[in-house]
Amino acid sequence: MRVLILGGDGYLGWPTAMHLSRLGHDVHLVDNGLRRRAHRENETDSLTPIAESLSARARAWEEVDGRRMGVSMGDLCDHHVVERVLREFEPEVIVHYGEMPSAPYSMASRAHAAFTQYNNVIGTLNVLFAMRDLAPDAHLVKLGTMGEYGTPNIDIEEGFIEVRHKGRSDVLPFPKQPGSFYHASKVHDSVNIALACRIWDLRATDLNQGVVYGIHTEDTKRDERLLTRFDYDEVFGTALNRFCLQAVIGHPLTVYGKGGQTRGYLNIVDTIRCVELAATNPPAAGEYRVFNQFTEQFSVTELAELVARAGREYGLEVVVKGIDDPRVEAQEHYYNATHTKLLDLGLQPHFLSETLVESMFEAIQRYRDRVILDRILPRIRWRPREPLPASP
Amino acid sequence: MRVLILGGDGYLGWPTAMHLSRLGHDVHLVDNGLRRRAHRENETDSLTPIAESLSARARAWEEVDGRRMGVSMGDLCDHHVVERVLREFEPEVIVHYGEMPSAPYSMASRAHAAFTQYNNVIGTLNVLFAMRDLAPDAHLVKLGTMGEYGTPNIDIEEGFIEVRHKGRSDVLPFPKQPGSFYHASKVHDSVNIALACRIWDLRATDLNQGVVYGIHTEDTKRDERLLTRFDYDEVFGTALNRFCLQAVIGHPLTVYGKGGQTRGYLNIVDTIRCVELAATNPPAAGEYRVFNQFTEQFSVTELAELVARAGREYGLEVVVKGIDDPRVEAQEHYYNATHTKLLDLGLQPHFLSETLVESMFEAIQRYRDRVILDRILPRIRWRPREPLPASP
Repeated sequence: MRVLILGGDGYLGWPTAMHLSRLGHDVHLVDNGLRRRAHRENETDSLTPIAESLSARARAWEEVDGRRMGVSMGDLCDHHVVERVLREFEPEVIVHYGEMPSAPYSMASRAHAAFTQYNNVIGTLNVLFAMRDLAPDAHLVKLGTMGEYGTPNIDIEEGFIEVRHKGRSDVLPFPKQPGSFYHASKVHDSVNIALACRIWDLRATDLNQGVVYGIHTEDTKRDERLLTRFDYDEVFGTALNRFCLQAVIGHPLTVYGKGGQTRGYLNIVDTIRCVELAATNPPAAGEYRVFNQFTEQFSVTELAELVARAGREYGLEVVVKGIDDPRVEAQEHYYNATHTKLLDLGLQPHFLSETLVESMFEAIQRYRDRVILDRILPRIRWRPREPLPASP
Repeated sequence: MRVLILGGDGYLGWPTAMHLSRLGHDVHLVDNGLRRRAHRENETDSLTPIAESLSARARAWEEVDGRRMGVSMGDLCDHHVVERVLREFEPEVIVHYGEMPSAPYSMASRAHAAFTQYNNVIGTLNVLFAMRDLAPDAHLVKLGTMGEYGTPNIDIEEGFIEVRHKGRSDVLPFPKQPGSFYHASKVHDSVNIALACRIWDLRATDLNQGVVYGIHTEDTKRDERLLTRFDYDEVFGTALNRFCLQAVIGHPLTVYGKGGQTRGYLNIVDTIRCVELAATNPPAAGEYRVFNQFTEQFSVTELAELVARAGREYGLEVVVKGIDDPRVEAQEHYYNATHTKLLDLGLQPHFLSETLVESMFEAIQRYRDRVILDRILPRIRWRPREPLPASP
């Protein structure tokens, strides 16, 4: 298949590209370098020393694997970029990772919130219109997030729920309660994509993904130039990856608030397999479908305890420390989310284990002198501590 | 109260301003002239000859009524504009009509869709952040639309619904199925406003309004310079207003498709009363509440028949003509929407009647030589007739 990967330079986009290329698909990548730029502005960096550019990555891939990937550097918010690549590459599948993916980033200021929603919503609108006009039969595989659902007091279903009400019933979009302007931007996307499928007969799979962990895939191990990024900072890092790094460098594992926040998690190798499964099993024209893409649920405390146990066995001194929750979120809540559709398509999950955590320790050890210590603790708060006075 | 009206130059914003000013509130208006500009670009215009600018309107109001209104011309997408007016005026209530309000406009092209969502979402984000920092106790009265809900096969509730599922239950946001990129932009706003109330303890009322009809309020009749706009063109016109105008000028009443599309409707005098009721009964800090703002449901065919009957009694020759539906929508469907919250606050509806329609005929007669005939029929289609070829 001809697979276009938007956001092909990211933590997941790059390993997805290698995976699909190795399977024999014709892969073309688009990226605007936003993630690298945001890291430079924050004075943060990937733990892993990734290749200097997406083109360098593609060249290394060709040397190591023998297969070619096309690369276009450009911004999805510039509709000419999107239209040109759809016209020239004629994709059959469009895997869309090309968004600002950080909740803390979106909460840092008004400008960050507005940029996040502009970037994600307008970029995706440009993709939808370009598909309508230039690739109406292509299949959009869009990365959403489990965070769109929030933490309702009922089981979370995969995108839709049958609601019985006053003697009638209908299958309706599952109600969304996002917890940040980033998560809200993904809800906006979902609404726009569903609409485009309905009115233009486009086909799309929305992958509401849990929190991804892991540092290596089959391909990143083949050559250091093929490493994917690994973020641990307050803006782009996520719970389990950060805990593993904290354990290795002797930093307390920072549990936000009570630690009862429960979410879906999955291994990075399962992410790329899920995207492959979605891509190779397209929906019908006009269908907007949603898969919940994760393999296990954990509370933050459970993750911290698992990492602490594994760390002690590995010979590390690990301390778990509760800190003020910078977010506004339920710290104890019901959480049970359905996630059978990808299993039905053949996903065989790689579950989290102490062995897996220990292998992450090993990989992190190798790059521990690259850690930027003062960028780990959260400084961005959902509720700014000192709001400006009303009448200055 | 100090009431800030965003979009104070519009069909509803201007009569709301006069109404609240006459009741003794301190009113300040913001507008960027977007609606007037869009009409110039479309070569369309209001049937009623409105005053040449918002400032001219405010001057006329002061001459007629004796009360002053402040006016700031500026764009809500420029956050400096929003922050300055909140700092200087210190509003207690912010009535937010300041958005691009047209579904056909949003469907005219990629650029129109992107502009509509950018303008509405970013403008409202700027209002929310400015409230957080400069007016955290103010009450946001935001105009949403009944079109956010779409046409589900269950009764529509006011913003939230109790969902019972697998032995558990929760009160969740009512699922949204908007039918255009404009309607989607209002869904995006709703998500963002709910989030802001939850994390920053802002207070907001989201008025999911039906289709408004009518040409006059108590204040617009006092002086011709106080007229509000009356749109009948394909972009900004709405069903009942357009039918009344078509009846007067001898144009067939254009029913889209089967005419079974059922929606909530209300008289413009009820709109301004609803906004007043919401404004004077604010929610608690942190509360995001939703009122469904309409008084009666009609199908398009029912409206056309009512106008035809009234027209014949009035001495007009009226023909009802079905035309291709330019939209993608259910032309026959279940529709029953709850709308009790504003009644509970004291709304006494002005129901639609043949007498009311005849009074609209009279008002339209007065300006019938201003009608631009070739801008009435719909040319914007949800599904473009000739998509570009995939490989040109």
